[in-house]
Amino acid sequence: MQMSGELTIEEKAGNAPLRLYCGWFCPFAQRAWIALEEKGAAYEYVAIEPYEEDPEKPGGYSKNPLPLEEKRRRYPDFVAASPRGLLPAIEYHTSTGQIHRVFESMVCVEYLDELLPGPSLMPPIAAPEQRALVRAWCAWANEKIIPHFYRLLMRQSAEEREAEKRQLLDGLRCFAEAMSPVSSTGGAYFLGDDFSMADIAVCPWWTRFHSIGATYRGLEIPHGGAFDRLHLWGAACEGRPSVARTIVDQKRLVGNYSNYADGSATSTVAQTLAGKA
Amino acid sequence: MQMSGELTIEEKAGNAPLRLYCGWFCPFAQRAWIALEEKGAAYEYVAIEPYEEDPEKPGGYSKNPLPLEEKRRRYPDFVAASPRGLLPAIEYHTSTGQIHRVFESMVCVEYLDELLPGPSLMPPIAAPEQRALVRAWCAWANEKIIPHFYRLLMRQSAEEREAEKRQLLDGLRCFAEAMSPVSSTGGAYFLGDDFSMADIAVCPWWTRFHSIGATYRGLEIPHGGAFDRLHLWGAACEGRPSVARTIVDQKRLVGNYSNYADGSATSTVAQTLAGKA
Repeated sequence: MQMSGELTIEEKAGNAPLRLYCGWFCPFAQRAWIALEEKGAAYEYVAIEPYEEDPEKPGGYSKNPLPLEEKRRRYPDFVAASPRGLLPAIEYHTSTGQIHRVFESMVCVEYLDELLPGPSLMPPIAAPEQRALVRAWCAWANEKIIPHFYRLLMRQSAEEREAEKRQLLDGLRCFAEAMSPVSSTGGAYFLGDDFSMADIAVCPWWTRFHSIGATYRGLEIPHGGAFDRLHLWGAACEGRPSVARTIVDQKRLVGNYSNYADGSATSTVAQTLAGKA
Repeated sequence: MQMSGELTIEEKAGNAPLRLYCGWFCPFAQRAWIALEEKGAAYEYVAIEPYEEDPEKPGGYSKNPLPLEEKRRRYPDFVAASPRGLLPAIEYHTSTGQIHRVFESMVCVEYLDELLPGPSLMPPIAAPEQRALVRAWCAWANEKIIPHFYRLLMRQSAEEREAEKRQLLDGLRCFAEAMSPVSSTGGAYFLGDDFSMADIAVCPWWTRFHSIGATYRGLEIPHGGAFDRLHLWGAACEGRPSVARTIVDQKRLVGNYSNYADGSATSTVAQTLAGKA
């Protein structure tokens, strides 16, 4: 429980047939990272630095991505797995000498869940309606929660920020309303006792709301009503060892996000949200 | 094969324990519709008209969505299944009296695939890397193909349209490059012989490129290189009975899209792409 992301990165530096291409700063990559930790898998953490270097910045680089060609030159194996050069990606060398390559964060999570033994991150195949519930709320996270967080950071007018904050909180409230009740034994995950992909889809940002969001935009998650369920959920996720082991130093993280907050980021997330990619 | 969408809608008007909330004009809903046809399932097609009425328009309405409260008033069962009031949604009454409700287009497709007998729309669970491949390219369709098509329709300057067209074609080219080769027996689906979710994710738009895209924006899908594989793919999809039975009159469809082309659409797709939702 006292392990933090930086220590886990050191611990997982050795060779393994299962490689995670990751970045300490990247919440999308953290999703796949949590899945690997959840499974107790042997894996190699391969650090990718996809941004232009900037020695002034915490971590040593900016939020301006290297051109894809430059990423391919520096990290050919990573770009072979992730055609847009985006984190995360997985490379798995099977015992029969095949190489599997997987990209796209939630796709990596589901791949790892299907590949590896250990606790399942999805309801069983005999409960398709429960599987659909989890998948629908993962999609909700990607469409109705996460984009508003980045836009809240990126928008430069107070009015636009207010609108994004409202939509972010609305997306979170609906997510909380869709959760199962807290179980009789106190299980407060999205499904109650069972930690699942629906939790993984959102919890890397929960941490960031309280560090990056609070620092740059005074973001506070309200209490009362459905938000009480959300706070119980957030505490349960952050307390889970698989998640705790992937949480990095938040001061370092806050510094790393200054480009979003001052409007100078040109990352793919930033460009997509500006309608340019 | 000569069945078209309008005839299928008439055929599926009767009561069934499995209901599809659909709209004849909606390519997202068409994904779930194709899955039902693919499975040969007994289902009830329930037509939803989520837009403001406009007797001048083909189909009788505009691309301006009714407020969620008005949708809930008109279609309470539909909004119970789809909390944003977006198409498609599925409602399934089990033999034990439970009701399952599912929303979000690709989630509906995967739910139907897991629920119903018939040809599988996903590689087997023993091939997680193939399942990940299909899922990653479904996500690609949603992020790198479909938004550019709507923006191509919505953008009002020639320069912006050119940029969207370039990105649309780039997204399609990568999708084509990720396909398996055409099989020795001529199977030209994304995976070769096996029709899958990757095909369903894109094929409702393939038809629309040639009708709506060509009419309003002179869109042409090039030939040569990877695009030759794409044309073989598109013909295979449109020729598959499950798909053919969901294709509606394209003249009527072109008329229905005029709001996008003249910049007056306020649908959720339009608002999301304008960064407003």
